[in-house]
Amino acid sequence: MALAAGARGPVRALLLAGAGLARRAAGGGGDGARRFSSQRVLVEPDPAAGVAVMRFKNPPVNSLSLQFLTEFVISLEKLENDKGFRGVVLTSDCPSVFSAGLDLTEMCGRNPAHYAEYWKAVQELWLRLYLSNLVLVAAINGACPAGGCLMALTCDYRVMADNPKYTIGLNETQLGIVAPFWFKDTLVNTVGHRVAEQALQLGLLFPPAEALRVGLVDRVVPEDQVQSTALSVMAQWMAIPEHARQLTKRLMRKATADHLLRQRDADVQNFVSFVSRDSIQKSLQAYLKRLRQKKG
Amino acid sequence: MALAAGARGPVRALLLAGAGLARRAAGGGGDGARRFSSQRVLVEPDPAAGVAVMRFKNPPVNSLSLQFLTEFVISLEKLENDKGFRGVVLTSDCPSVFSAGLDLTEMCGRNPAHYAEYWKAVQELWLRLYLSNLVLVAAINGACPAGGCLMALTCDYRVMADNPKYTIGLNETQLGIVAPFWFKDTLVNTVGHRVAEQALQLGLLFPPAEALRVGLVDRVVPEDQVQSTALSVMAQWMAIPEHARQLTKRLMRKATADHLLRQRDADVQNFVSFVSRDSIQKSLQAYLKRLRQKKG
Amino acid sequence: MALAAGARGPVRALLLAGAGLARRAAGGGGDGARRFSSQRVLVEPDPAAGVAVMRFKNPPVNSLSLQFLTEFVISLEKLENDKGFRGVVLTSDCPSVFSAGLDLTEMCGRNPAHYAEYWKAVQELWLRLYLSNLVLVAAINGACPAGGCLMALTCDYRVMADNPKYTIGLNETQLGIVAPFWFKDTLVNTVGHRVAEQALQLGLLFPPAEALRVGLVDRVVPEDQVQSTALSVMAQWMAIPEHARQLTKRLMRKATADHLLRQRDADVQNFVSFVSRDSIQKSLQAYLKRLRQKKG
Repeated sequence: MALAAGARGPVRALLLAGAGLARRAAGGGGDGARRFSSQRVLVEPDPAAGVAVMRFKNPPVNSLSLQFLTEFVISLEKLENDKGFRGVVLTSDCPSVFSAGLDLTEMCGRNPAHYAEYWKAVQELWLRLYLSNLVLVAAINGACPAGGCLMALTCDYRVMADNPKYTIGLNETQLGIVAPFWFKDTLVNTVGHRVAEQALQLGLLFPPAEALRVGLVDRVVPEDQVQSTALSVMAQWMAIPEHARQLTKRLMRKATADHLLRQRDADVQNFVSFVSRDSIQKSLQAYLKRLRQKKG
Repeated sequence: MALAAGARGPVRALLLAGAGLARRAAGGGGDGARRFSSQRVLVEPDPAAGVAVMRFKNPPVNSLSLQFLTEFVISLEKLENDKGFRGVVLTSDCPSVFSAGLDLTEMCGRNPAHYAEYWKAVQELWLRLYLSNLVLVAAINGACPAGGCLMALTCDYRVMADNPKYTIGLNETQLGIVAPFWFKDTLVNTVGHRVAEQALQLGLLFPPAEALRVGLVDRVVPEDQVQSTALSVMAQWMAIPEHARQLTKRLMRKATADHLLRQRDADVQNFVSFVSRDSIQKSLQAYLKRLRQKKG
Repeated sequence: MALAAGARGPVRALLLAGAGLARRAAGGGGDGARRFSSQRVLVEPDPAAGVAVMRFKNPPVNSLSLQFLTEFVISLEKLENDKGFRGVVLTSDCPSVFSAGLDLTEMCGRNPAHYAEYWKAVQELWLRLYLSNLVLVAAINGACPAGGCLMALTCDYRVMADNPKYTIGLNETQLGIVAPFWFKDTLVNTVGHRVAEQALQLGLLFPPAEALRVGLVDRVVPEDQVQSTALSVMAQWMAIPEHARQLTKRLMRKATADHLLRQRDADVQNFVSFVSRDSIQKSLQAYLKRLRQKKG
């Protein structure tokens, strides 16, 4: 209870800080179903089932820009507060990519205040997802590195497409950066300490079969069955008495969330001073340049 | 040492509180072997081997009534204090059920003082078993849900009958209730965080083969070999130098036990206020009514 | 940072205390490659690869004598401080044995000051290895019980020879002693709580196939390919951006190391009073006598 209240404060601050953005993102009125959707997050509600599908639509790779994060958290909060919905499937509207993770352009060539705002929004995304009262099922229909993997790991269940071109993992070290401790905690809770230690140090990206073997995902199915499988898994989870399931989820996850909540400001400061370093800025800029050349 | 002393205090209080009961349960004298047995817990000592088999006999389903808990803890304490015994096999004398777990009639239509007394007895059972200096092997010869599963999880080794009708798990959410944190801690220590998270949220009951696969039990054997297998496993554990094994067990389990010992009173209060709720009382009564109609 | 500084202090103290020994061990001058080697630890540097192989040469069984520990820590520190080296393979120069672990003669018939000095050196070995900035790969080419297993567990990756005569595990209870909590923590981090609980209580020694199954080692290969496999694994680890990998390793291991650092003195006191007991001295002497009779 204290925890939920604690999480709510900062999010409200975040939303107020980006209020113009939020208003734009949320739109003004419309019918019940459409009012959930924003530019970057399509919400397809199925009120009869009490389930909504949230589709990430931030082309080309669903990177977690500040605007995407803001719209996502607003859409999620609406579903949390609507008693008609008890489960959400997270999936991608972009071909071949679930989410590429953090948006490097938010971390590059900006000022410290921007870095801080951005990092708070990433923290907020994780806190909202990890402690969500909704049943969350990830329908992983594309590549799922770094922050994309983090979003999948916050879900209660992960279904992945059986396409060996798609991989999943926290590959931060491959880019020369370090996954924050709460990314690490989330991974350890999912695959255990030893698999996490090796995967994080090497920045491993697991193809579906390997991801299943180490427990990074729970089921691998043909690509065209990812969403239907996610929905049938959802039905199993929704059959459980609601309040008991929510309290049990909190029982499992509260200590991990508290770990971040206790040092949220320090974690922001740590991020800001890290990305502000010349060496990091240079390597991020070089990396972005290579990305742009690839596309061009 | 501090821990053992701490655990001893409350149990003594429990025993004094229920002293009439305890005297009845323990019987008055008789020969060495018989003096261990009570109405609801049959103790079959094999002094030559230094092993005793404790059979739960609280028909029809070995529910953990206050009387059963009291008799069980007394019998266990006698074995702990008898230097002739170093290992105990826990098994059921009732057909098809190891133990159905907590006795809902103790949680329904009583007063807060009764709920508190009951919950302290459940805590005591777990503390005594989880930190027992004896080698404990569970011979799971029947269904093993909820509190029955908890008892099995406190053992050093679990042998289960290969009968797909028997299942094992902490299925509390299926009944609309939440496993206490120390049930959760015990499960996490056995199967890891991720399996525990899913199993607890969904209230999963695992058939023997699945239970073996996730590590909820250690061996699955034909039903008529459960006890003999438990005894041969016991021989392996008893071959280890006693004191080193006991200290090692404590090294592994002390932090988990301390977690409850630190907040034992709060945990009792939490239980009392939870079961005292009208909504919980109504759902427990409805559930008990359905159970009685099934039997009738 | 604070941690590294904390670890450095005691080691300096250790080295000063045994300065004569250290000087002898380290040798005086010579060319770059040879200066790393000592009597008991052969260092084979491959500067082009940035990798060194450290071979334990303390016949007959590479027991962790005080002199071995001192020489080992000095050699390791030199490699840590030499920017030309980023990875180290640990292996044995003695046939059939990786390391037999603690040297019982250091724990037998000496005075408390000696026991304390010895135990600090064992702690130092673990702290240095567990938090090493180098990539460490164990090439386990022989038996690997107790302290030998501990050394292997501190590495980032373990390759073991496929020889069923070789076993690995923390078998302390078999000798009537108890693995210290930081041995236990290291094991739990590698194989999880349940496997560790059973393995530690029973003092299990796992043959290679079993060790692989429970995650005690990462790869099992024919005996003549142990070192080459270790070196090819090393190449994979060395391809990761250095600083990010080091920080990630620390992220995974710092809490476990802090656990010992917080109570290092108490742990020494605990060891000294344990081995000083008459009963332990008698059983160690009896054990050593049997060992000598075997050899003779």
